[in-house]
Amino acid sequence: MNNLKLARFFATISKESKYVPNSGSYPLGYKVGAIHCGVKKNSTLDLAVLVSETPASAAAVFTTNKFKAAPVQVSRQILNDKNGKGISSIVVNSGNANAVTGKGGIEDALKMVDTVDSTLKNAPSSTLVMSTGVIGQRLPIDNILKGIPVALKDVGSSHEDWLRCAQGIMTTDTFPKLVSKSFEIDGRKYSLAGLAKGAGMICPNMATLLGFFVTDAPVTPGALSKILTYATDRSFNCISVDGDMSTNDTICAMANGAAGGEEISETSSQFSKIQDEITLFAQQLAQLVVRDGEGATKFITINVQDAQSYADAKKVASSIANSALFKTAMYGKDANWGRILCAVGYADADVNVLKTNVSFIPADGSAELKLLVNGEPEKVDEERASEILELEDLEIRISLGTGGGQEANFWTCDLSHEYVTINGDYRS
Amino acid sequence: MNNLKLARFFATISKESKYVPNSGSYPLGYKVGAIHCGVKKNSTLDLAVLVSETPASAAAVFTTNKFKAAPVQVSRQILNDKNGKGISSIVVNSGNANAVTGKGGIEDALKMVDTVDSTLKNAPSSTLVMSTGVIGQRLPIDNILKGIPVALKDVGSSHEDWLRCAQGIMTTDTFPKLVSKSFEIDGRKYSLAGLAKGAGMICPNMATLLGFFVTDAPVTPGALSKILTYATDRSFNCISVDGDMSTNDTICAMANGAAGGEEISETSSQFSKIQDEITLFAQQLAQLVVRDGEGATKFITINVQDAQSYADAKKVASSIANSALFKTAMYGKDANWGRILCAVGYADADVNVLKTNVSFIPADGSAELKLLVNGEPEKVDEERASEILELEDLEIRISLGTGGGQEANFWTCDLSHEYVTINGDYRS
Repeated sequence: MNNLKLARFFATISKESKYVPNSGSYPLGYKVGAIHCGVKKNSTLDLAVLVSETPASAAAVFTTNKFKAAPVQVSRQILNDKNGKGISSIVVNSGNANAVTGKGGIEDALKMVDTVDSTLKNAPSSTLVMSTGVIGQRLPIDNILKGIPVALKDVGSSHEDWLRCAQGIMTTDTFPKLVSKSFEIDGRKYSLAGLAKGAGMICPNMATLLGFFVTDAPVTPGALSKILTYATDRSFNCISVDGDMSTNDTICAMANGAAGGEEISETSSQFSKIQDEITLFAQQLAQLVVRDGEGATKFITINVQDAQSYADAKKVASSIANSALFKTAMYGKDANWGRILCAVGYADADVNVLKTNVSFIPADGSAELKLLVNGEPEKVDEERASEILELEDLEIRISLGTGGGQEANFWTCDLSHEYVTINGDYRS
Repeated sequence: MNNLKLARFFATISKESKYVPNSGSYPLGYKVGAIHCGVKKNSTLDLAVLVSETPASAAAVFTTNKFKAAPVQVSRQILNDKNGKGISSIVVNSGNANAVTGKGGIEDALKMVDTVDSTLKNAPSSTLVMSTGVIGQRLPIDNILKGIPVALKDVGSSHEDWLRCAQGIMTTDTFPKLVSKSFEIDGRKYSLAGLAKGAGMICPNMATLLGFFVTDAPVTPGALSKILTYATDRSFNCISVDGDMSTNDTICAMANGAAGGEEISETSSQFSKIQDEITLFAQQLAQLVVRDGEGATKFITINVQDAQSYADAKKVASSIANSALFKTAMYGKDANWGRILCAVGYADADVNVLKTNVSFIPADGSAELKLLVNGEPEKVDEERASEILELEDLEIRISLGTGGGQEANFWTCDLSHEYVTINGDYRS
């Protein structure tokens, strides 16, 4: 147990240095920050705020879990009521999910919104609210309401402010997940920032998946909503740590237009360009969540090709990514094509069993290792397989041989002893 | 590692003594046995046969995995061709699944059928064939074909013969799964014997789920097929060790009528009586498979009540039973209603979130422990919860509060360090 804790500590340090940026290129017109207000018992950051200098377009994708947390219900209502227009800020507390908390929980979430709006002199209902942490307990709402004006005074737009904001939404995450980039459309520079949290679910800290994208591009609410759905489908909905979906999962986007330029609608010529940029960006952010999967020692890309449809390709990829047997084999560094094939076979998708191919694509750029060709097993060079499986990153490519030509990517991690330790033994 | 192996060894001994019967009440007109013929490298039993003295009705439910093993394809064809009539025997090899073996594999399976039929002077295609074990390798078919006449000479109808037959189909199972019982219909005594194997999938020994029921009641093929589907839906399709479905899964039934009496068809008055008997029996056998789940330390019954439909109740139960987070919480003896609720919430079924109840039903008959009442968390007595979770057996009762009144049961085990060790570390 002590060895495991030590190993996890060192893994954390190494992940921090690998995946947390030292600088960034952030969108104009946003200020962010985070403080400790007293939700978490230790003194770590637990209240994060993000403020746009001007009211922005906003969109969100919420959990489909039937037990929707209070902040999910409240934020969804606000976005509906305002048709995704005039959203100025986001407030997030970590340490308590405000889920399964009844009417009182809804009132608490509304109070958080009202306090942000009145402090900033926003129009009413201009703020989205999110929570992550323990479920079934009421928020320490007084601490939060007292903290909000303090947090809002302490916002800024430096790299350190963004990093602090990303830290403020963490629960069991071992490192803050923050990405940023700039890109050009028609000669104009736009920037994107993304923050996320999530590392499987640990109760009492049920670690929700939260993700935020904010840009200074001018995008209509309708276009932003379409882009977010498309990007989420191909990023946060294509990752699996343990297959469970929490009561609080929320991915949201804001576009304030601070960088100027013509407003981008669904029919604009720039629409597909910005959709592609945001999708790639969302994938980058989602992959960080997988890298921080509880007890993860491997980062696995599952690439499914030649399916009849994108949906079929995704079903097969998801079936593999969620197979406990496959995930333990990866942890054991075992070139077990049987388990991969098995998971392909029970997915609800068209497969040509006589034309199915399975290969390992090594992360170091060396030649692929074929495991199954046209439904027949290859004689596998076990030494070569071991070499490939020693690397942290691995891509598994499956061709379903249907002639449909459709493709999907999915990202997952392995299932380790440490996962069981974190999720089963945390009381000891 | 050595401690784990030792623990598993002692767990095996204790399971053997608890779940393997010392005697039985077997159906008339069957002879069974098993030998070592040389499929497995060690000298354990690897070829089992079951022979009915007269041609019998037969039915089977096969894996829905798209990569169907050769014996699955061959047995299905035989049952189709003969409309489930005139089946005299079953032959099973363990140690090699004859899966993903192409045309040669089909030929091997057909040879096994032909050799049994010619040795017994059966009509052609009177034998069903099954295989379990490594996938992707051709059978050592000569050893098997030489072994078949030897095995068929050495059959009997004693308890020891039935036990030997159950041992002959084992791969990674830690104990043979054999049950038998007698029951009366209209004053006539009938008997049932059941054998099963399965303990999660371990590659290279991908441990298929196989199950057999044989009875001396006279049942038409149509009625038997209906009964088997009904019973399997409520037994083998209601268990989960790790959620994966193999290329070889097969549940089959035979009814030879050796006990006499009027033939039972779908319209007979005795139909529902024998269907209920076989269903209860199938549940008993399926539960043994869960008890032998890889690394299992807990046996968990999930009882979902007040669903809109049986299908909905089963979906919710299955969602909980397959949640890695729930299963690790059970291993950690943690009364984590949040994870249960979460799995309820993402199942594709009607749920009244304001009327959902969750309770622990202790195995020792003491009072239930309410965790969630009408969607609101109870103050849980942690000491009482710990007491309940110390027991090997536990029932979790969930009421969905829909007013539909439908109910389903599901059986599962926990997810332990040992599961990861068995499935990830077996090469070390």
